[in-house]
Amino acid sequence: MLPIGKVPNDILERVVFKRTGAKLDRVVLGPAIGEDAAVVDMGDRYVVIASDPITGASSGIGWYAVHVNANDVAVRGATPLFLTLTILLPKDVSVGLLDEVVNDAHSAAMELGVSIVGGHTEVVSFLSHPVVCGTMIGEVEKGKLVTTGGAKPGDVILITKHAGLEGASIIASERYNELVEVVGRGVLERAKSFSRMLSVVKEALALNEGCKVTAMHDPTEGGVIGGLIELSIASNVGFRVDGAKIPVAEETRRICEVLGVNPLRLISSGVLLATVDEEAVDDAVKALKDAGVKFSIIGEVVDEGRIIEGPEGKVYLGDEIVEELWVALEREID
Amino acid sequence: MLPIGKVPNDILERVVFKRTGAKLDRVVLGPAIGEDAAVVDMGDRYVVIASDPITGASSGIGWYAVHVNANDVAVRGATPLFLTLTILLPKDVSVGLLDEVVNDAHSAAMELGVSIVGGHTEVVSFLSHPVVCGTMIGEVEKGKLVTTGGAKPGDVILITKHAGLEGASIIASERYNELVEVVGRGVLERAKSFSRMLSVVKEALALNEGCKVTAMHDPTEGGVIGGLIELSIASNVGFRVDGAKIPVAEETRRICEVLGVNPLRLISSGVLLATVDEEAVDDAVKALKDAGVKFSIIGEVVDEGRIIEGPEGKVYLGDEIVEELWVALEREID
Repeated sequence: MLPIGKVPNDILERVVFKRTGAKLDRVVLGPAIGEDAAVVDMGDRYVVIASDPITGASSGIGWYAVHVNANDVAVRGATPLFLTLTILLPKDVSVGLLDEVVNDAHSAAMELGVSIVGGHTEVVSFLSHPVVCGTMIGEVEKGKLVTTGGAKPGDVILITKHAGLEGASIIASERYNELVEVVGRGVLERAKSFSRMLSVVKEALALNEGCKVTAMHDPTEGGVIGGLIELSIASNVGFRVDGAKIPVAEETRRICEVLGVNPLRLISSGVLLATVDEEAVDDAVKALKDAGVKFSIIGEVVDEGRIIEGPEGKVYLGDEIVEELWVALEREID
Repeated sequence: MLPIGKVPNDILERVVFKRTGAKLDRVVLGPAIGEDAAVVDMGDRYVVIASDPITGASSGIGWYAVHVNANDVAVRGATPLFLTLTILLPKDVSVGLLDEVVNDAHSAAMELGVSIVGGHTEVVSFLSHPVVCGTMIGEVEKGKLVTTGGAKPGDVILITKHAGLEGASIIASERYNELVEVVGRGVLERAKSFSRMLSVVKEALALNEGCKVTAMHDPTEGGVIGGLIELSIASNVGFRVDGAKIPVAEETRRICEVLGVNPLRLISSGVLLATVDEEAVDDAVKALKDAGVKFSIIGEVVDEGRIIEGPEGKVYLGDEIVEELWVALEREID
């Protein structure tokens, strides 16, 4: 039996990634763990393609569908340009819901300068909730392509914004009434607003423009720790990170404390994880400052071993990606 | 309330097509009725993008997801090359189902020379059936682009294979036990095998290579009549078709007779509908003969009016697309 959620990496590798149709030389990057966008050779440029569905959101589905796919394209150093949306609606649905999905997608696409070029819209008899499958297509100069698998020992690791921001925002919305008495309205309102920081397009493109980036990734399920693990698998390297240097917003820390979950394992769309050559650090810092994006240098890439150092010593991490959002949404609040 | 199935054209035009994010000059063809693939300018070539989900099939989902998206790209005159698949599985599903979807997609992609470059695989708690959303990306020389909207008065209309072949195959599979006593095993087995003719890639590319095609379309929901209506809307023209010249396989005719449905309004993936300049007809005939594809010349494009001439006189068609598969799957057999 497969678990609910994204199919585990070992099953993807064993069942999915080995049968991918014809082998074409023009495929620069195909399906691989931690690599969320494909790269194909289009003559004078690379075209980057990312497909991700939105299955869990109760509102803003169209908006998420644009941003998560744009993020996956942007971490390749590519500009997101063209989007298709397959909108699948539950039965007995009003035109109002379709209107909302389309409007949200339109707003997000306007923000990013992306054109929605096509797709498909259908009412599906056996659906109880809407599902939107997006595919974003972008492009990048051949010399500026970045992969998640390009990190090398000695590189410096940096992240933007703060860990668990997406999870904190979801929890604040979904459990507002229960949490408000424990943490207060202000914390929840501010946490909810973190959803507005979900895009990494600006910082990914600014960083790639301003310096030689060796790898980028946007940590989603599994949070910052999951993202670090995926980057290290894709790059076949280890990392040594100072846990204290990973920024966590006070609101996120408070919500996670109450629910007993680790903010570093909380879904983190909006955080950009990047590695840069040691000599490129000054340029990277300048690029992110100029772009007006908050960031932190959290550690370095090493040959092997995945180590997070904290006040209680070193934590050694394996391959397993653990997402704490589901626990946080279910756990009793005392 | 929206009806089950593909959302009606008037709602698409009113709700979906008017809010498509940023306006980019590079979008050569965006969302439009009857146009099933987008076209974007990629410098020295056009890139063609089609997204279609498979929501209704009980088997061969992966195989369908590849072929229907490849068809949409091929009717632009473009070679399908790169595919992403978003595979959404119902809960309590075994790895076996995923394995089957992947294997079917792999086989279809091998047939077409397409590479599956990425996607997403997830188990969704509220799904009772699998859904696969595919996006196919192809390319075409700028001078060889074909749209559904390019037909002009005086052009000759031709179709390949025979009307309703996909619907006949689905009905034969789904209602085998009920129909076998009425029409016999041979008819049903042959009708079932029509599913192997679902691709129009070979004929679309051969035709576009061999002559100046003005428009192509692959009629799906609504059958050959629906396809003709969509082509005429997209091209802003009318048509005059000789109903007797639209080929219908004996098996399809028999099954439709028993169920009281019109084979010309039965889902018809696998049929290519094309218009060519009168002077290009000889080249078109040669191209399709050389490719070994059966075809028929069924009528001509006119300024206005959608006319099918039959033994009982002329039938004038409006904008409405009617698909008879659902009736055929439900109707009592005497």
